[in-house]
Amino acid sequence: MLAYNIHHVAIAVEDLDEAIAGFESRFKVSSISREVIEDQGVSEAMIAIGGSHIQLLEPLSPETPVGRFLSRNGEGMHHIAFAVQDIEAALAHLKNTGARLIDETPRIGGGGHRIAFVHPTELAGTLVELVEVDHG
Amino acid sequence: MLAYNIHHVAIAVEDLDEAIAGFESRFKVSSISREVIEDQGVSEAMIAIGGSHIQLLEPLSPETPVGRFLSRNGEGMHHIAFAVQDIEAALAHLKNTGARLIDETPRIGGGGHRIAFVHPTELAGTLVELVEVDHG
Repeated sequence: MLAYNIHHVAIAVEDLDEAIAGFESRFKVSSISREVIEDQGVSEAMIAIGGSHIQLLEPLSPETPVGRFLSRNGEGMHHIAFAVQDIEAALAHLKNTGARLIDETPRIGGGGHRIAFVHPTELAGTLVELVEVDHG
Repeated sequence: MLAYNIHHVAIAVEDLDEAIAGFESRFKVSSISREVIEDQGVSEAMIAIGGSHIQLLEPLSPETPVGRFLSRNGEGMHHIAFAVQDIEAALAHLKNTGARLIDETPRIGGGGHRIAFVHPTELAGTLVELVEVDHG
């Protein structure tokens, strides 16, 4: 398998504080880390669930990818991220199989991880992010 | 935390064989189990990724929840499922906090697990499934 785990499932939300409070109340969430990723135009919260995470994404402005997603679709699941050991190797494999990549080379995402996005055409309409995390 | 892991992320697809073949080619998937769940009107494939799964869902007919989802939205993420140790306790907690439940009591889902769906209003527009799996 190219990926060794589901790193996170990202959900686009209108109001991050409200979404966190709701999630805490309903699902007894504990570990939460927050970060602003200017490059992606989002303020995000990462909530650990077992070995994976739920990522809540609030756009920094309507003119960002997540802002445009919200005005088209409303709140809901935005992408799924797979944890990979070696992102260069994963991108090379995807390219060799003819996959359409959004990022041909890795860039830096949340938590300082190297990430890359794969076009939704490659997984049944689902935007996929690869996140390089040491599997050690 | 109410849930101890992400059990699966479900993706609605038009053609299950084609979706599996594409996923295998792009993501080097290995372990796949298939099942027809008449009660939910789907033919599904569960694909293990680390401790979680991707679930691909093809509707058995257009007049099923997943069939209607596809004609409204096209292919894409349909719901997220959390693994819980005790589904009765999880449903009781959700009910106590005022959550809107689709299933007030558990029913039997894929793999013979007890499952229940929680309304998308409770997690920022995201349909949530609880799956009771022994954490042992």
